[in-house]
Amino acid sequence: MQTKILLPEDRLPKQWYNIIPDMPGQMAPVVHPGTLQPVTPDDLLPLFPMPLIEQEVSTERWIDIPEEVRDILRLWRPSPLIRAHQLEKALGTPAKIYYKYEGVSPAGSHKPNTAVPQAYYNKIAGTKRIASETGAGQWGSSIALACQHFGLECTVYMVKVSYGQKPYRKSMMQLWGANVLPSPSNQTNAGRSILARDPDNQGSLGIAISEAVEDAATHEDTRYALGSVLNHVCLHQTVIGLEAKEQLAMVGAFPDVVIGCHGGGSNFAGIAFPFIADKANGREIRIVAYEPASCPTLTKGTYAFDYGDTAKMAPISKMYTLGHDFMPPGIHAGGLRYHGASPLVSQLLHEGVIEAKAVAQTACFEAAVLFARTESIIPAPESSHAIRGAIEEALQAKEEGKEKTILFNLSGHGHVDMTAYDAYFNGELEDYDYPAEAIRESLSHLPKIG
Amino acid sequence: MQTKILLPEDRLPKQWYNIIPDMPGQMAPVVHPGTLQPVTPDDLLPLFPMPLIEQEVSTERWIDIPEEVRDILRLWRPSPLIRAHQLEKALGTPAKIYYKYEGVSPAGSHKPNTAVPQAYYNKIAGTKRIASETGAGQWGSSIALACQHFGLECTVYMVKVSYGQKPYRKSMMQLWGANVLPSPSNQTNAGRSILARDPDNQGSLGIAISEAVEDAATHEDTRYALGSVLNHVCLHQTVIGLEAKEQLAMVGAFPDVVIGCHGGGSNFAGIAFPFIADKANGREIRIVAYEPASCPTLTKGTYAFDYGDTAKMAPISKMYTLGHDFMPPGIHAGGLRYHGASPLVSQLLHEGVIEAKAVAQTACFEAAVLFARTESIIPAPESSHAIRGAIEEALQAKEEGKEKTILFNLSGHGHVDMTAYDAYFNGELEDYDYPAEAIRESLSHLPKIG
Repeated sequence: MQTKILLPEDRLPKQWYNIIPDMPGQMAPVVHPGTLQPVTPDDLLPLFPMPLIEQEVSTERWIDIPEEVRDILRLWRPSPLIRAHQLEKALGTPAKIYYKYEGVSPAGSHKPNTAVPQAYYNKIAGTKRIASETGAGQWGSSIALACQHFGLECTVYMVKVSYGQKPYRKSMMQLWGANVLPSPSNQTNAGRSILARDPDNQGSLGIAISEAVEDAATHEDTRYALGSVLNHVCLHQTVIGLEAKEQLAMVGAFPDVVIGCHGGGSNFAGIAFPFIADKANGREIRIVAYEPASCPTLTKGTYAFDYGDTAKMAPISKMYTLGHDFMPPGIHAGGLRYHGASPLVSQLLHEGVIEAKAVAQTACFEAAVLFARTESIIPAPESSHAIRGAIEEALQAKEEGKEKTILFNLSGHGHVDMTAYDAYFNGELEDYDYPAEAIRESLSHLPKIG
Repeated sequence: MQTKILLPEDRLPKQWYNIIPDMPGQMAPVVHPGTLQPVTPDDLLPLFPMPLIEQEVSTERWIDIPEEVRDILRLWRPSPLIRAHQLEKALGTPAKIYYKYEGVSPAGSHKPNTAVPQAYYNKIAGTKRIASETGAGQWGSSIALACQHFGLECTVYMVKVSYGQKPYRKSMMQLWGANVLPSPSNQTNAGRSILARDPDNQGSLGIAISEAVEDAATHEDTRYALGSVLNHVCLHQTVIGLEAKEQLAMVGAFPDVVIGCHGGGSNFAGIAFPFIADKANGREIRIVAYEPASCPTLTKGTYAFDYGDTAKMAPISKMYTLGHDFMPPGIHAGGLRYHGASPLVSQLLHEGVIEAKAVAQTACFEAAVLFARTESIIPAPESSHAIRGAIEEALQAKEEGKEKTILFNLSGHGHVDMTAYDAYFNGELEDYDYPAEAIRESLSHLPKIG
C-alpha cells in the first residue's frame, strides 16, 4: 500500500512551464495606474529587475530554472505526493485521492517557490534590498528566507493587526534576518499620512502594498516583490504541477480532476497550469479553483480592468475582481482575502477552461479536522478550501459509484494557525453571508479602460 | 550537488534493532518503588500492555514492526537525510555534515515513532484509553495523534504552566482528539491533594506523571504511556539510525561521529544505537550525547539507582541521575529537563562506549540561528544542542584540516517555539550556572538499593 510518491532530487524540474503561449485568446494589456495607457517594461523597472519583467511577458513555453535557484529549492523539493489512503477509508469512497504537500518548505507553504527565484534575479540585477508586504505572514516569511540565502536585505511591511495577532510569523521573519515593520509605519509617506489622520489605524493589505511599493520606488537599490497574482509568480509555481504529473505517472495515474484553493491564484496556477496543457491536447480533465464564499472573486466578481491594490498605485489588469476597495470579512484564511485574481487564471475561467466554486469557512474547517484526524497533517486554513473540494468530489464519486482520480494541492501547514482551530472548536467561527451589497458598491468604482 | 538522500517507503525498516543482546555487561534490574524488590511483568500490567512489557526485556536482536504500525509511519517515514551544504560553506569546514530530519512528522518531532507502536500494542491488548503526561507538548501531541489513528481515547495531563504558555501544543492535541487537562488537576488524588495544599500550583513533569500513572492504575480499561527513557521507547526510535545508515550507504558514506541531543535519551538512542552495533564490530566511530549545561545528567550526575519521577511512584532504575527531586532551571529546551536518563544510554556511557558533553543555552541558540539562516529549517530548542555539537566537531575538523563525516539528529522543528527565539534575540536568555549545590542536595536523597 504505497502512500508517498517521492521524486529523487535530480528530477527537480529544470524548466518552468509558461502557459502564456498556450492561453486561449489574446491577453489584455496591463495598464499604468497614472496614465491609463499600457505599461512598458521601463515603467516597471523601478519595481522589478529586468529578468522578472521579461518573464512577465515571455512567450517561451519553457524557461530554464537557474542552477543557483535549484540549489536552494532542493533543500525541500521535490515535495512529496501523498495518496490519502486514510481519508479515502474514512469517506468510504471509490475515488483515489492524491495530494501534493507544499508544507514541507521551511516557511511552511508553496510561497518560497517564487520567493527564491525573485530574490535570485534581484541579486544578479544588483538589487541590495527587497521591500514587500505581508498579511498573515506566509509570504513575508518566504521572501525573508529567500533574501537570506542571497545576501539581500529585506524589509517587510506587515499589516499591523497581524503583527500583533501572528507573533510567530513575525519572529520567523526576524530569524531569517528581515526587518519587519507594522504597517502603517512612519517609514513612508503613505504610512505617515494615514497615521496623521488615524494614529490607531490597524492597517490593511492595500496600505502595506502601498508602503512597500513606495519604499522600492523611492530607493535606487531597492526593488519590490509580490507573492501572487503576477504572471512570473504563477510561472515559478509550476514546479508543483510538473512534479505532481511526473509522480502520478510513476504509479500509472492521471487525474480526472485537479483542485487548488484560490486567493490571488499562485498555488492554484502552480498545481493546475501543467495539466491545462494536457487539456488543450484533448485529455479529459476538470480543473477547479475553490475560494472562500466571503471573498468570492471568481464566482461572484466581474471580469474587468481593475487596480491591483486599494490605493490605486499598482498596475491595472483585466481580471475577475470584487472591486479594488472591497474589504472582505476577517476570515481565518487570511491568504485568500484578495479582491482580485491572477489575470492568467481569470482569462482561463472566462474562456471556460477551468471552473470555480465558493465554500463557507466552517465547512472548510470541518474538512480540515477530518483531514488532520485521518492523514495527520494539520492544514493551513487556506489549504482547507482545497481539501473541502477534494472531499466533495470524492463523495460525489461514491454516490455515483465511480472510480475517479482526484489531485489537490495542500499548499501549507497550519502549525502557526492553531488559534483558528480553537475558534472552530469553540463554535466562534462565523459563516459570513454573501456580501452582495458591499460588492455592488465596490464594483461601481472600477476604472474606465478601453 | 546532492542535498537530500531519500529512501523510498518500501525501504522503511521492517524490524527494530534491540540493543539489549549487544550491551556491554549485564543490565541492572528495575526495582519496584514500593517493595524495593525487582519488578515482575505482573507488577507492570496495570500500566503497560503485555507486548510492550515483553519488548522492555526482550533479548531478541531484531523485533518485527507490525504492518499496521508501518502503515501509519509511512505517512512521513522514511524521513530525509540531508547534507548540510549551506552550513558547511558558512563554517568553511572540510567536514561533511549530514542530518536526519525528524521534524517531518505531523507532530513535528521524533516522538510519533514510539507513540504509534505504543498505541497499536495497547489497541490489540484491549486498552480503551491511554493516560499520559506532557511538559512542553511534543510527547502529548504525538500520543494524541497515535491514539486517533487506532481509535483509542487519550487523556493528557499537561503541566499547568505549559498549558498556559504553549496554547498551540494544547490545540494540536485537541485537534487530534485528546482530552487535555492542566496538571495538577482535580481528576486524581495526586492532583487534588496538591491543589488542596496549594491551589495556584503551576505543576511539574513529576506531578503530571503521578497523575497519569494514577489514572491508568485506577481504571481497568486505561494504560499509561511514556515518551522516553524506557527500553521499548529506545527500541522504537531505532528506525532513525537504521534509515540513516542505509541513506549514508547510498552515497558511500559512514560517519566518524554521531551526535544527538539528550534529555531522557530516546532520540539519542534512535540515531545512535544502530551505529553502536558497528562500533562493537570494530568500526571506528565516536558517539556523543549533547545535554544542557543547566541539567547535566550525563556529565555531572551519578550512576546509581533512582526513581523515575519526583513523586517516587515510578519504578527505580540504575541510571545517570541528578536526583529525583532535582528541579532544573526553566530553559527553553523543555524536552531536555529530566533528572535521569535512559538506563540503556546510561550503561553505555558508564562502560565508555559513548561520550557526553554539556552545552549552554545561548550557545545552542546561536547555533540554531546559524542553522536556520543557512539550512533554512527552524530547529526545536532541544535539537539545537545537537546542532551545537555538530558545529563544534566541524570547526575542530577545520582546525585540524581533516575531512570527517558528521551525522546528527535534527529531532524536531521549532515552529511553535518562536517565543524562545524572540527571547534570544532580545537578549533575555540566561545561561544558568552549573547548579552544584542543588544537585548535591538532591543526590543525597537517592534510594538505598542492593
